[in-house]
Amino acid sequence: MNRFVYADNAATTSVLPEVLAEMTPCFAAEYGNPSSRYSLGRSASQLLSDARARIADVLGAKPTEIFFTSGGSESDNWAIKGAARANASRGKHIVTTAYEHHAVLHTMESLKKEGFDITYLKPDGQGEIRPEDLEAAIRPDTILVSVMFANNEIGTVLPIREMAEVTHRHPGVLFFTDAVQAVGNVPVNVKDLGVDMLALSGHKIHAPKGIGVLYVKTGTRIANLIDGGGQERGRRGGTENLPYIRGLAKALEIASDGLSDMPRIAAMRDRLAEGILAAIPYARINGTMKNRLPGNLNVAFEFIEGESLTLLLDMEGICASTGSACSSATLEPSHVLLAIGLPHEKAHGSLRITLSHENTEEDVDYILEKLPPIVKRLRDMSPLYDGAK
Amino acid sequence: MNRFVYADNAATTSVLPEVLAEMTPCFAAEYGNPSSRYSLGRSASQLLSDARARIADVLGAKPTEIFFTSGGSESDNWAIKGAARANASRGKHIVTTAYEHHAVLHTMESLKKEGFDITYLKPDGQGEIRPEDLEAAIRPDTILVSVMFANNEIGTVLPIREMAEVTHRHPGVLFFTDAVQAVGNVPVNVKDLGVDMLALSGHKIHAPKGIGVLYVKTGTRIANLIDGGGQERGRRGGTENLPYIRGLAKALEIASDGLSDMPRIAAMRDRLAEGILAAIPYARINGTMKNRLPGNLNVAFEFIEGESLTLLLDMEGICASTGSACSSATLEPSHVLLAIGLPHEKAHGSLRITLSHENTEEDVDYILEKLPPIVKRLRDMSPLYDGAK
Repeated sequence: MNRFVYADNAATTSVLPEVLAEMTPCFAAEYGNPSSRYSLGRSASQLLSDARARIADVLGAKPTEIFFTSGGSESDNWAIKGAARANASRGKHIVTTAYEHHAVLHTMESLKKEGFDITYLKPDGQGEIRPEDLEAAIRPDTILVSVMFANNEIGTVLPIREMAEVTHRHPGVLFFTDAVQAVGNVPVNVKDLGVDMLALSGHKIHAPKGIGVLYVKTGTRIANLIDGGGQERGRRGGTENLPYIRGLAKALEIASDGLSDMPRIAAMRDRLAEGILAAIPYARINGTMKNRLPGNLNVAFEFIEGESLTLLLDMEGICASTGSACSSATLEPSHVLLAIGLPHEKAHGSLRITLSHENTEEDVDYILEKLPPIVKRLRDMSPLYDGAK
Repeated sequence: MNRFVYADNAATTSVLPEVLAEMTPCFAAEYGNPSSRYSLGRSASQLLSDARARIADVLGAKPTEIFFTSGGSESDNWAIKGAARANASRGKHIVTTAYEHHAVLHTMESLKKEGFDITYLKPDGQGEIRPEDLEAAIRPDTILVSVMFANNEIGTVLPIREMAEVTHRHPGVLFFTDAVQAVGNVPVNVKDLGVDMLALSGHKIHAPKGIGVLYVKTGTRIANLIDGGGQERGRRGGTENLPYIRGLAKALEIASDGLSDMPRIAAMRDRLAEGILAAIPYARINGTMKNRLPGNLNVAFEFIEGESLTLLLDMEGICASTGSACSSATLEPSHVLLAIGLPHEKAHGSLRITLSHENTEEDVDYILEKLPPIVKRLRDMSPLYDGAK
């Protein structure tokens, strides 16, 4: 029997009915411009303030520290370029990691052209990066540290609180975390973490694509990325996307409540991992199983090509990916898997499965039924496997 | 009898039912990431390509010249900062106008800090700027000309085709137009106009807030504003906002068809203008009536304060504004009205009424019934008016 199993929740998620319900009134009824002074505008402005307060509440921030953006990529660009440009007079050195999302890595490339010097922390073979590695990389001219909260491909959760602490031992150095993959999967409280800036994206937590947040701690100096009208207290121009902002507030509240479901998701993921390793030879989990997002699994299958694997899985109704969706249009091997030391051919043969609260034990059964024969079929066609046998 | 008359269509518009209908399937059904390789992703990718092609078709562009952004402000920032930074080695001079939207003016301020030199063309007392004024301002080190298509407060439509032509007499100088207020009100065809870049926003034409386009002519060199994944051919990172992109395609098609309704809207606007001038003394139209957006009216009423006027109109169910919504949170007089030579007190006493295809003759009657007594009431309370009488 064919099922539809969406197991690519790190790539994107569907919009929840409750989220859509919160958005809908803002399209044709509450359509005022929040900057307009008449009642229709004031009502929009109140809906905006309410959403901002709710989001701040979930994140442990003040409402004035929440800035709405068009998504995780804009938040990453703004935080990094904004901090770099506003603080360049104090130094031009930035520390980040080798396996950040491309919204961070490509931003660093662009800052290099502006004369910034970037140090990339290398994860170990398990995908971990220790606070000591960061400590060793900070220099007198360091102005910013940008470390992802959780890796989008192998799910490694980094010690952000400790890293922020290490960073702040050096006065004036800012700490930013791209928490796009962490929010909704692990507790994220900016005050507990002690970060200066934090980015999140709506569409990873069942809000729509095209909305994000940049948390900026009071007193943090960053340059604007998008100049314009007085929106977002003069720091981000553009008429506010009220429907999506309302949707994000709802999605974040639901995601926060849903953290209690994480042990169930981690148990499903573990059963899936064990089932795969038991049924398929020459398979190995990429990344540590210890500090890992509950829904993330990433497995390297020797002698096969990940693209063919996802294609055949798709024919069975299973959505999974070889790496991040954002870079799947290229045929380059995953920079994340290369960074943790996989050779090209193993990086190419890796599969990412990311479960969410919508997945069930039946989904796991179904993947465990379909995946092993597909891997076998692909290997039977592979001359490399032939040689290995 | 009280009506609800929305007459602030330059600030924002409601989402049309047809637009919402085109968006809705993309929230919970077609929720795939367009970069994902499996069927759900490929289907999203096809919906994206289809929308891009339809938008290109309306604008007279190639699909590969259409880049989706989060709105007009991002498009303005990207075009201007992108062109400036990518071409700085050839010169650091930019020409713009004194009455652009703040998304342009504040972007210019930020470029000044990067060492760029900006020349601001001044409109005449009627709000017009001639191609000759532009010609005179271009220097050997000019790299970019940025002139709005139509002014957002007084509705003046500028001779963009002629200005692009003047610009291109100087090899290597790029021409960008912020067409946010023009699209949907006057024909906009990038090929006919000969522009290198053009910005538009969805929420001015009944698509939602949070979606825009930057048209970039093939071969035009601009730096990225938002770096990231491979989206938008590597030039704008961020998972595509498919629902809004679909909605924008529909809204743009409807707006393009709706251009035939513009004579009716202009006639309503003219009747409104004549009625106001006949009923209210010490009133004067701001800006030329010749080259003007069909739905735009902007009137200066001496001896009163625009904020009080919009407040009392609101109590009668009429939504109108003193200037652009984006800057209405400040108490500064309109920079547009100051630029065309109004003294502070007249700029403060101005009212902008912007009609759309949704407005009716009854709306005009209603405004003409309510506005004169409100102006009288405010003047009766004004010591200045007392003196004038």
